Amino acid sequence: MTVLGIDPGTHRFGWGVVSRTGTRLRHVAHGVIRAPEGAPLAERLVVIEAELLRALGAHAISCASVEAIFFAKDAQAAAKLGHARGVALLVCARHGLDVAEYPPARVKRTVAGHGRADKAQVAQMMRVILGLAETPPSDAADALALAVTHLQNSAFRAAVKSPVNPSRSRAV
Amino acid sequence: MTVLGIDPGTHRFGWGVVSRTGTRLRHVAHGVIRAPEGAPLAERLVVIEAELLRALGAHAISCASVEAIFFAKDAQAAAKLGHARGVALLVCARHGLDVAEYPPARVKRTVAGHGRADKAQVAQMMRVILGLAETPPSDAADALALAVTHLQNSAFRAAVKSPVNPSRSRAV
Repeated sequence: MTVLGIDPGTHRFGWGVVSRTGTRLRHVAHGVIRAPEGAPLAERLVVIEAELLRALGAHAISCASVEAIFFAKDAQAAAKLGHARGVALLVCARHGLDVAEYPPARVKRTVAGHGRADKAQVAQMMRVILGLAETPPSDAADALALAVTHLQNSAFRAAVKSPVNPSRSRAV
Repeated sequence: MTVLGIDPGTHRFGWGVVSRTGTRLRHVAHGVIRAPEGAPLAERLVVIEAELLRALGAHAISCASVEAIFFAKDAQAAAKLGHARGVALLVCARHGLDVAEYPPARVKRTVAGHGRADKAQVAQMMRVILGLAETPPSDAADALALAVTHLQNSAFRAAVKSPVNPSRSRAV
């Protein structure tokens, strides 16, 4: 199972690919799409789509995990984020991927143990959990954390759904 | 000059095409994209993209006119609208179209004479201005009004920019 995590944004758009074999997580790739500063929003979205398609084409992705809309920010920030998130959902759905959504607090709890972990902690935990030589940039780290959250969640669901082999369930 | 007006929405997505020859406005086409109710947002965006591409393919569009983000609504509504608007901007920019933006009050003032006109008044004015046999549905009427607003605005700009032929400028 290989998951594409996406942390959408109109200026920095983070993505990260993580796979799981049995109980083992493996880092595949990550990146931050930086749409040209000062360019109109429409052009930035075109760059985001093209780069995201490139990431999708380079890896055999099973599904996507995107940050859920959260409403702490003001309406203007929410609308802007919506544009980038809309392009992310569109590209994934067109690619035939199911899209899971997780709120930020859930992601932080999964990868750092508590829902109020800061960005540096999340990035640091991604380095540790995925055995990376360097701490990934913050937006990519958030995307990797979304992928890891979905892998953990689907492993748990699979374990709950397969009580015929309890030893295997516990192992997951 | 042929303008595609767009009134984005994740449930009803209005579009309308209006052309101008000299001072004469001509209705070309309009429609409302109704993404399947109950389908995930990602799938609705795929339907919106496909239908919008069909409209773009069927008419020789010069540019697009989209409702500007406005912030009267709450963050949740703004984020949802952002998804549909993001797809609209993406598709237009990919198609090589310049995208003009007008706030709702400006559009209402242009087509109905005052900034607080209601949806029924806008739809009624579109029927009159464009000489339609029937009043268009509200979302398509808003899209047509965006196209008309851009045509009026660009005619005004052209007139201001071309003082060498004042009689022609006055005629526009």
